Amino acid sequence: MPDRPNTPLLDGIESPADMKRLSDGQLIQLAAELRAETIAAVSVTGGHLGAGLGVVELTVALHAVFDTPRDKVIWDVGHQCYPHKILTGRRDRIRTLRQKGGLSGFTKRSESPYDPFGAAHSSTSISAALGFAVARDLGGVVPEGLGDAIAVIGDGAMSAGMAFEAMNNAGHLKKRMIVILNDNEMSIAPPVGALSSYLSRLYAEEPFQELKAAAKGAVSLLPEPLREGAKRAKDMLKGMAMGGTLFEALGFSYIGPIDGHDLHQILPILRMVKARGTGPILIHALTKKGKGYAPAEQARDRGHATGKFDVVTGEQKKMPSNAPSYTSVFGKTLVEEAARDDKIVAVTAAMPDGTGLNLFAERYPSRCFDVGIAEQHGVTFAAALAAGGMKPFCAMYSTFLQRGYDQVVHDVAIQRLPVRFAIDRAGLVGADGATHAGAFDIAYMANLPGMVVMAAADEAELKHMVATAAAHDDGPIAFRYPRGEGVGVEMPERGEVLEIGKGRVVREGDRVAILSFGTRLAEVLKAAEALSARGIAPTVADARFAKPLDRDLILRLVARHEALITIEEGALGGFGSHVAQLLAEAGVFDGGFKYRSMVLPDSFIDQASAEDMYAVAGMNAAQIEARVLEVLGVASIAGKRA
Amino acid sequence: MPDRPNTPLLDGIESPADMKRLSDGQLIQLAAELRAETIAAVSVTGGHLGAGLGVVELTVALHAVFDTPRDKVIWDVGHQCYPHKILTGRRDRIRTLRQKGGLSGFTKRSESPYDPFGAAHSSTSISAALGFAVARDLGGVVPEGLGDAIAVIGDGAMSAGMAFEAMNNAGHLKKRMIVILNDNEMSIAPPVGALSSYLSRLYAEEPFQELKAAAKGAVSLLPEPLREGAKRAKDMLKGMAMGGTLFEALGFSYIGPIDGHDLHQILPILRMVKARGTGPILIHALTKKGKGYAPAEQARDRGHATGKFDVVTGEQKKMPSNAPSYTSVFGKTLVEEAARDDKIVAVTAAMPDGTGLNLFAERYPSRCFDVGIAEQHGVTFAAALAAGGMKPFCAMYSTFLQRGYDQVVHDVAIQRLPVRFAIDRAGLVGADGATHAGAFDIAYMANLPGMVVMAAADEAELKHMVATAAAHDDGPIAFRYPRGEGVGVEMPERGEVLEIGKGRVVREGDRVAILSFGTRLAEVLKAAEALSARGIAPTVADARFAKPLDRDLILRLVARHEALITIEEGALGGFGSHVAQLLAEAGVFDGGFKYRSMVLPDSFIDQASAEDMYAVAGMNAAQIEARVLEVLGVASIAGKRA
Repeated sequence: MPDRPNTPLLDGIESPADMKRLSDGQLIQLAAELRAETIAAVSVTGGHLGAGLGVVELTVALHAVFDTPRDKVIWDVGHQCYPHKILTGRRDRIRTLRQKGGLSGFTKRSESPYDPFGAAHSSTSISAALGFAVARDLGGVVPEGLGDAIAVIGDGAMSAGMAFEAMNNAGHLKKRMIVILNDNEMSIAPPVGALSSYLSRLYAEEPFQELKAAAKGAVSLLPEPLREGAKRAKDMLKGMAMGGTLFEALGFSYIGPIDGHDLHQILPILRMVKARGTGPILIHALTKKGKGYAPAEQARDRGHATGKFDVVTGEQKKMPSNAPSYTSVFGKTLVEEAARDDKIVAVTAAMPDGTGLNLFAERYPSRCFDVGIAEQHGVTFAAALAAGGMKPFCAMYSTFLQRGYDQVVHDVAIQRLPVRFAIDRAGLVGADGATHAGAFDIAYMANLPGMVVMAAADEAELKHMVATAAAHDDGPIAFRYPRGEGVGVEMPERGEVLEIGKGRVVREGDRVAILSFGTRLAEVLKAAEALSARGIAPTVADARFAKPLDRDLILRLVARHEALITIEEGALGGFGSHVAQLLAEAGVFDGGFKYRSMVLPDSFIDQASAEDMYAVAGMNAAQIEARVLEVLGVASIAGKRA
Repeated sequence: MPDRPNTPLLDGIESPADMKRLSDGQLIQLAAELRAETIAAVSVTGGHLGAGLGVVELTVALHAVFDTPRDKVIWDVGHQCYPHKILTGRRDRIRTLRQKGGLSGFTKRSESPYDPFGAAHSSTSISAALGFAVARDLGGVVPEGLGDAIAVIGDGAMSAGMAFEAMNNAGHLKKRMIVILNDNEMSIAPPVGALSSYLSRLYAEEPFQELKAAAKGAVSLLPEPLREGAKRAKDMLKGMAMGGTLFEALGFSYIGPIDGHDLHQILPILRMVKARGTGPILIHALTKKGKGYAPAEQARDRGHATGKFDVVTGEQKKMPSNAPSYTSVFGKTLVEEAARDDKIVAVTAAMPDGTGLNLFAERYPSRCFDVGIAEQHGVTFAAALAAGGMKPFCAMYSTFLQRGYDQVVHDVAIQRLPVRFAIDRAGLVGADGATHAGAFDIAYMANLPGMVVMAAADEAELKHMVATAAAHDDGPIAFRYPRGEGVGVEMPERGEVLEIGKGRVVREGDRVAILSFGTRLAEVLKAAEALSARGIAPTVADARFAKPLDRDLILRLVARHEALITIEEGALGGFGSHVAQLLAEAGVFDGGFKYRSMVLPDSFIDQASAEDMYAVAGMNAAQIEARVLEVLGVASIAGKRA
């Protein structure tokens, strides 16, 4: 398969309007071309492949039947939106996916009117579709108009409480809207939970093969005009709607299950729903993640996310790795700690691989809990495990922990329960962009009474912090660490239990002290080197703790330097704000002292490499150096703030 | 009914162990006494009455059948826990409910081993019960031991996504645990949503009356020993378990519906479940909120929350009101704005009365959306309403908005959608205590790029801010205001659209400037009066905006005073931290400047009057005065910080 596959029909599609003149047979060919183009594009960009391949036919059918962008198609999570982007005027930029200045890897309102509601976190699509449906019925005015509202949501995402809340509300409001349950029995990890078993039973019990045959037969007989087709589809559908009581209990009409790769089934059903639909309708489509590309279909995660790869062999072009990832250091260290302490348990919300808990789950399956996409439940479940005498590690990405924030406050912090929060993807994350940037956790965790908040400066520090968290039984504790590889420091045999609230001086100097919280330490040290070469030798310290602060260390740094600069991979309101409060209360500012706090800027930063994103944030070595010179009033030659 | 009812059996119950020797007939009498005592106690304390009266029989049955505190009974929300507190060694303090130094109005771990998991926010109990069940099976060690885990959850709370997540996980894990669905068709407001309709259908379709009669007949034949009773109960239950497919789909065995006020039904079923239960079991009990007390039963909210009242007449002893509540000012102003703008819509998460949106719902029923206990969905739904051209006001309490934090970040802020957040119960709230204290919203909202964050200094300001939010169409905006009455200022005819990011000077003075964000302004002005009497006349300003900050105003205050003190009803990381960052970046500290930030202390403050809680926080007029004197280095006579 060449890098640019032969796509005669697709070449003629500039927007979905061009699809209206295609026959069903041509739409089938278009789907094949779209699949080839998706594979070819992702092979050069890397990104989320399996999800898109699973919805190629659904994507074609939705744009062929509905009038986008007037009708709103909302892709849950957005991992599966690459084929959609190709069909909606963005094919020319599809090979810039997830790159700086390129297309987002998710749907994004600012990118296209065909993306009516952006996504990246899971399970928001039904709420969004309901909002559009209600706005339509109330006379809301938007440039593209407001027509049908269609959410496409995976079975994993459907298990999140938020999706249930939205279904419950939609069933109550009875507005015309459509939910397509894209059931591939795979979210990122195999889905867990009773709902998943229910769905499996649903199609195990259905005479699915027969229905499929019947449906094909029915459609092959379809005469023009389509009205007739719709009638037949309706009959078929009636026969199909014997399952789905769960959804019917929630007020939805249930259609399915149908074969989500068979346009002969999908097209007539969508046409019928468009023509005759009234209240909320759920269409249950069975799909295969990675469909049509053997290397993806055969992968354990069905080609969920991939680097650049060779289209023929499927082999990924791996970057040489210098140091272990923070995620794997966390996972391995937790296994080690768990070997010594049988009370250690772990909780993940559908991210066993992403959080490194897959290692733990393999070794201690009965002590590892994948609760599904369910951060609210996961946090409170962990709190109760702690109340029951266990030592739970709750491993979540910084942005996903936002989903369980009230539970962190209400169930963990107020009750002072020793839940250990392993906060992965802290700071800027690169290709996933703003939606995944872990910018707010320092602020939202550090102002909770009784919470201990740590950040690892490197992978060895992370190992110490896992050990520290395991040993800390007097209330909750959190430690944050970034996406990606460590800096290559030597790893200790065993994690050391750190003294709570004590930082460390990494490099002694004078005039200016830089107090780092987290992995900016490496850039700070580079800046210190450069400054030393200019005759300014800063002191560099690693705070380790944002809470409690190392008051002695901070006041010692103040006493011995003319300036103090804090730096953290987080937004205003976190570490630096706590330091500023300490300095103000101690009267440090009263007589004059140069204090600056480097935090993430007050803007959402688009995807790029993490390095590039930190340059936008003004936080790389050259920028830190420039900042120091500026604060000291020394003229800078190099580095302006980006 | 006397203040102290005659309760001969209850008088002999010091702990649930004393209930083990009572016959079923005596347990029925005990329930009657417990109901009378609950009514009598709440008549002198005020508090949540209806919920407790609805579970008197369940409370008696649970403690009679199970071995608490080894078995964990977890009351969802906790509004219904007063009878439970009376039976579990806290009867002597039951007339101190919700008062300073008294019993909490909710369950609380630090209060009693019979409260294994505290609550106050809804829908956490199933997660908690599952955590205890898993900890038990993994050998968790706690002083009271780990036995059965029982969640008691209302039908309103069951509609929250978090409860669904927990059910989904419990059905998957298949641990022995019990969920009692306390179905009274009432949460605080009548429950909404498809689940609620489903439950109604469930018992409408069941031959409930017949079953009830049959069950009664079966139990009246019960011989001792109870083993025989259990057998009969099992047969009865088998016949009953024809409904509940929704719960069965989630992996629960379903028992019900049963009459939750009939101990002849409840006791044998609980005994059977205790003796024979294996995996997760859901018992569907129908109850009546306010049961057994006519004034509560007849109230629209079934006596949800009450002030002190006369037991005979049910008449509440109303406090004279000087000024309108902030909540009602919000509600009324929104109705006025909505009359002028038909794009204004409102979203509440099951709190139409608590947020004042009941007024809006009466006037504009088709534009007001009660989404149920579903903050996650509610926020994203509001975001999509905005994307669909409407002007949504999303009215939630500060602590409950924590439930939708990720949605605020991901769906509103990143997309810059003009959702208007009306944040009620900001700051300390009084009798509801720490779980309801709105301490964190300034910090967690103000560090979101593009978010405008306001706080009302008084009720007239709130009116302006509602108008400002209605007019603000360029991104999201939030305004916060406290529980309780305004300060009695004259109300403008119409709210004025404030200039974004501009504060106001309220009182000109010199030496020290106090910059207030929110309703501490009244105390600040009192402090300023007192200081003026001592010859120190502070300037007092109302910031109005935490974001964007009024840079000009702040730097002007700095230039003209020797000290600046900020004050806000929120935790560290919010308004003061943003001001400190501005001052640091502007170089204000470099040459020396006295800056202090008064924020809520780093502790959870127990219930008391809001006034008393602010004294604990060090934020009343005398304490502000003392702080000013301290900062200026003037010896203080009055007021030490509490």
